[in-house]
Amino acid sequence: MSTVWKSRYALRTLRVKSSAIRELLKITQRPEVISFGGGLPAPDVFPVKRFEEACHAVLEQHGAQALQYGPTEGYEPLREMIAKNMARYGILAQAENVLITSGSQQALDLIGKLLINSGDRVLVEAPTYLGALQAFSVYGAQYLPVAIDDDGLRTDQLEDSLRLRPKFMYILPNFQNPAGVTLSEARRHQLIFLADKYGIPIIEDDPYGQLRYEGEHLAPLVVLDHRENLRRDNGFTLGNVIYLSTFSKTLAPGIRLAWIVAPPDVVGKLVMLKQAADLHTATFTQMVAYEVAKDGFLDQHIKLIRQVYRERRDVMLDALQEFFPSEVTWTRPKGGLFLWVTMPEGTDCRLLFRAALAENVAFVPGDCFYGNDAPDGCRHMRLNFSHSKPELIREGIRRLSVAVKTHLREVHAPLEVAGARH
Amino acid sequence: MSTVWKSRYALRTLRVKSSAIRELLKITQRPEVISFGGGLPAPDVFPVKRFEEACHAVLEQHGAQALQYGPTEGYEPLREMIAKNMARYGILAQAENVLITSGSQQALDLIGKLLINSGDRVLVEAPTYLGALQAFSVYGAQYLPVAIDDDGLRTDQLEDSLRLRPKFMYILPNFQNPAGVTLSEARRHQLIFLADKYGIPIIEDDPYGQLRYEGEHLAPLVVLDHRENLRRDNGFTLGNVIYLSTFSKTLAPGIRLAWIVAPPDVVGKLVMLKQAADLHTATFTQMVAYEVAKDGFLDQHIKLIRQVYRERRDVMLDALQEFFPSEVTWTRPKGGLFLWVTMPEGTDCRLLFRAALAENVAFVPGDCFYGNDAPDGCRHMRLNFSHSKPELIREGIRRLSVAVKTHLREVHAPLEVAGARH
Repeated sequence: MSTVWKSRYALRTLRVKSSAIRELLKITQRPEVISFGGGLPAPDVFPVKRFEEACHAVLEQHGAQALQYGPTEGYEPLREMIAKNMARYGILAQAENVLITSGSQQALDLIGKLLINSGDRVLVEAPTYLGALQAFSVYGAQYLPVAIDDDGLRTDQLEDSLRLRPKFMYILPNFQNPAGVTLSEARRHQLIFLADKYGIPIIEDDPYGQLRYEGEHLAPLVVLDHRENLRRDNGFTLGNVIYLSTFSKTLAPGIRLAWIVAPPDVVGKLVMLKQAADLHTATFTQMVAYEVAKDGFLDQHIKLIRQVYRERRDVMLDALQEFFPSEVTWTRPKGGLFLWVTMPEGTDCRLLFRAALAENVAFVPGDCFYGNDAPDGCRHMRLNFSHSKPELIREGIRRLSVAVKTHLREVHAPLEVAGARH
Repeated sequence: MSTVWKSRYALRTLRVKSSAIRELLKITQRPEVISFGGGLPAPDVFPVKRFEEACHAVLEQHGAQALQYGPTEGYEPLREMIAKNMARYGILAQAENVLITSGSQQALDLIGKLLINSGDRVLVEAPTYLGALQAFSVYGAQYLPVAIDDDGLRTDQLEDSLRLRPKFMYILPNFQNPAGVTLSEARRHQLIFLADKYGIPIIEDDPYGQLRYEGEHLAPLVVLDHRENLRRDNGFTLGNVIYLSTFSKTLAPGIRLAWIVAPPDVVGKLVMLKQAADLHTATFTQMVAYEVAKDGFLDQHIKLIRQVYRERRDVMLDALQEFFPSEVTWTRPKGGLFLWVTMPEGTDCRLLFRAALAENVAFVPGDCFYGNDAPDGCRHMRLNFSHSKPELIREGIRRLSVAVKTHLREVHAPLEVAGARH
């Protein structure tokens, strides 16, 4: 009777595909492979010692509380700390605006659950974060993709899609995953203007905002929306934008801690959904994260991460310049974890992926990151520069350039030769 | 534009109500209140010192791994340990059958997501675990409640409901929440026979199975199903029953760690849903739990918990006997955390709850625990005996008896007197 389950799966399971990344990355676990695939932080900068001290302090002083059930909204001192930190970026949140989630992926799941009826449209960047597509697809989202360029979302191409009345827009303004680009200040204003004009709210996903390696911090969408509301004397401190961020890229992803900033009534609804989903995020990890982050440690640590990742980004950019053929282009991210390589037309990055693996180097083929089909086929690669050490980054790009050159020769070769390969 | 969200909530949010328990328990946070309300383990038996040592060992030896992303299925050594532990109860699971979840609540959410289309029927015990109702209701479950008595689910009343072809049955066989009753051996066999006859699978939720204070351990449904399959030479080691358990009641709920045991293809589907829901459960807490549980510590610790909770159960039973009027009855659980009090007809436990609060004692009114309306109104109380120390349990039951006697006098008083109260 093992097949009894198969006949019983809900319709929504048809919409969920295992992440292509996940399957690809399994192949790249061999130690000889240099992987630019995952979105992994550098393990060598994890504040392990500080975590040890924090675990000791939490268990010593609040052991019974740390191991007990806790409130669905999250550990109150952590919510307050997050609200205070947000204020430095102009986000005037109180603790009541903050919901702690089990990683940003849960934030995306809860938002999908809260807002998406099957068939609803969601406006997304093309390309966009794969995990958001997975989360929203479970609830039957249809996608309205809008192109991006080096200045982020093409707000000049937005209105046609907004007229189709998407339920919301899902936007990654800073050092976007996968493309590494940042929404320009002018476009941020334009986006808020259009959101207001069409009455379409925004989910602003900002996991990397604090990891800026050059240039000035730009105001988050939630802040611009807030200012707009103040200007009109609407009196809402938080309104049209739900803001997401996480400790995964600043402290550690293995503790699964992130947060949602939203108006209190939205937080209230999300709390009910979270209660049904996992009661609450682990009390212990929340208290430990609070203990780790407090007394200015988080700020100090983010400075260190910026320094380490900036160097790695520069090493990757230099190596790309040195090794890659001139018909290949790439983005130059001002922060974050990823850059985006564009191959000449006719390239197939799935085939290139195999060629790269033969050279013991890995990346994620770009076609994974589109809500619908990739508009220009599979000619992009996402490269992560945070995880590997500088010397490995340089060597990995060299290996990748070998695969790229071989692939380009094959693509440009007469058809019968390419056919003969199969 | 803050109300922009309200007009956008998905239909499924209408089905989610904040837990009545949650709201009630907020009132009971005052220190002078003795609460039998929550399902909280005793904080005084949390193995805090062992957790401290485990945190130290994990961070010292595997710091980078513990703080990094991990596989969605869970930390492999923990899955293997759970599979081995399960084998002692006759559950022949391999690691591939085990999916680690962020508490059992997430297991229930993922199962609801996997199996329930809106309007599907789910057969539940009446009363049953409130959290399961919340999880399944998000996905639009309709309930087929079947009565329970001191021997658990009334399997003699099952067939009428099975003919209505529920998607699955949700059963708590051991020391059921909220009633504390245990499904008898004969009824377990009958249940498996009927599940097979009608082709209706079972979700077996067993958070308390290891907390038995008297009598012999009874074979889990998943084992009986397995034996039945072997007898017919179906060759499936796991088939018609998905089994859930948790560390919340044996180690600590604040680490949010539980697991699902299912056939590999079901685990595969659940993994895809979990990936979209929260990527994976915290690597750090999984590794710490493994370190805490290993080398026989978990078994030793469960022995201690049994001893502590057995005493508290006995103190509560004795106090009920001593203080409560003879027209009130209650269950005598052989394990677990709860017992179930039945008041005479005409009682309203919501009113009684207020009277109890005036005496500084709290419980959960029984009407919270029904998929549909409570069949005999609100004349039950769920009492937790694991959380408070023995002397507080006795005093709490004494206070509750005062409220009970007052309430019974009012119920039995002439109508005009009752009316005058309002």
